[in-house]
Amino acid sequence: MTIFNKVAIVGTGLIGGSIALDIKKKKLSRRVVGVSRHASSLALAKKIGAIDLGSRDLAILKGADLVILAAPVEVILKLAPRINQIIAAECVVTDVGSTKAEIVSKLSRIFANYIGSHPLAGSEKRGVGNARTGLFKDSLCILTPVKITSALALKKVRLLWQQLGAKTVLMDPQAHDKALSFTSHLPHISAFSLMNSVPAGLFKFAASGLKDTTRLASSEAQLWADIFFTNKKNILDAVGQMERNLVLMKTAVRKNDRKKLISILKAAQKKRDKLIL
Amino acid sequence: MTIFNKVAIVGTGLIGGSIALDIKKKKLSRRVVGVSRHASSLALAKKIGAIDLGSRDLAILKGADLVILAAPVEVILKLAPRINQIIAAECVVTDVGSTKAEIVSKLSRIFANYIGSHPLAGSEKRGVGNARTGLFKDSLCILTPVKITSALALKKVRLLWQQLGAKTVLMDPQAHDKALSFTSHLPHISAFSLMNSVPAGLFKFAASGLKDTTRLASSEAQLWADIFFTNKKNILDAVGQMERNLVLMKTAVRKNDRKKLISILKAAQKKRDKLIL
Repeated sequence: MTIFNKVAIVGTGLIGGSIALDIKKKKLSRRVVGVSRHASSLALAKKIGAIDLGSRDLAILKGADLVILAAPVEVILKLAPRINQIIAAECVVTDVGSTKAEIVSKLSRIFANYIGSHPLAGSEKRGVGNARTGLFKDSLCILTPVKITSALALKKVRLLWQQLGAKTVLMDPQAHDKALSFTSHLPHISAFSLMNSVPAGLFKFAASGLKDTTRLASSEAQLWADIFFTNKKNILDAVGQMERNLVLMKTAVRKNDRKKLISILKAAQKKRDKLIL
Repeated sequence: MTIFNKVAIVGTGLIGGSIALDIKKKKLSRRVVGVSRHASSLALAKKIGAIDLGSRDLAILKGADLVILAAPVEVILKLAPRINQIIAAECVVTDVGSTKAEIVSKLSRIFANYIGSHPLAGSEKRGVGNARTGLFKDSLCILTPVKITSALALKKVRLLWQQLGAKTVLMDPQAHDKALSFTSHLPHISAFSLMNSVPAGLFKFAASGLKDTTRLASSEAQLWADIFFTNKKNILDAVGQMERNLVLMKTAVRKNDRKKLISILKAAQKKRDKLIL
């Protein structure tokens, strides 16, 4: 099903590249073009068949009817006004950032047909070299319309994600950032902090547990710094919750309080069983 | 290669059952018997071919030349004197517990031919129903001899683990407990605390990151309470380290200190790359 004439991906990394691959494979657009600061990323994106044409110049966006912003938040915010001068007013714009309140507030005022997206899929792996088809199949994609969001943007972007196999859900940007601070941002902070707490000299005594628990610590530093800074208050609250739970466990251990410790461990076990249902 | 005449497994759960399966498969012992408090566990162990015979009565240990203690630490400590009255003096005894200082100190004084083992393999899954052959292949097994450990115990138990495919390493029990507090016990505490910090109502917004980071929270509560209590001081130190790292991240986020935050995230990323090498 062809939904678009020309889709432009700004930021041909893991997410941008994976979206482009699926659009090409499912023929959702007549053409797919890519923009990146890195010529090597564009060359690779073209080689794997994710884009028809790549350029480091934003002028390539001209004539697009969908622009997907998949670059780091800071870069998107910097480029947005220039992009808006190049694209037509009826062009639909979305982004795939992991925090939404700040970016939705800003981009909604710049673009006439913008809606925020957050596909809950991805990987700690980086770059278009790790892009793959089907990344969004059976995943959830949160769309964050606000009062001034156009019906066109919502309709077109929702249809795109559904065609990529994602289930879409609508959410207020603030509620999104609060929820994700617990389900995504806190696990990352936990993984980064745990990794920094384990002396490298002891790695030979590590089994799969440490590897799994720290997988997210391989995530891209610049990207995650952006996420933490653009969701500061919620993240500080979530980390506070984690700190309180660590203290609860420490206290139970220190006091030899078996009953309390068992109740903490069983509560966690029960929640995890629910999580993986 | 037949190394033993009669191996007895006390505690036919995931670890005990997996050891038994491999001993049978590789014909390392003429007979394998199992002891458990749970008749259902013994029946299943027999059904899957892990043991030749099971009993809830310790008398079945009579005549064993190797006893593997794979029950919870508290249970092992309680049963040890009775087991010692049933087995012959030359019978080799080992355990598979995750902390070693306390249990090695106690069991070394009870059994004439004892050495502590800690196979760094396992799963958050529980019970003999999850036992499998090859669980220890290419894993590390730490043996913790002390001054009074007999050469016979070291030789026989090392040979057993090597036959199961594990690489063996010798370590002082105290050094073992210090190292494992970071590489295994802290990741568990982190997973339990993280799981308890995420409201269950938000699970629909969780992707694979939260699932992986909390996998260890499915671990058995009684077993892990024992581990935390028998390695209290090291664990409190390790959790303290994690708390300091959380505060470092929080402070960098709160102060908008991008340079500091990036350096924290990159340090973690670099360590993780080293961990999975």
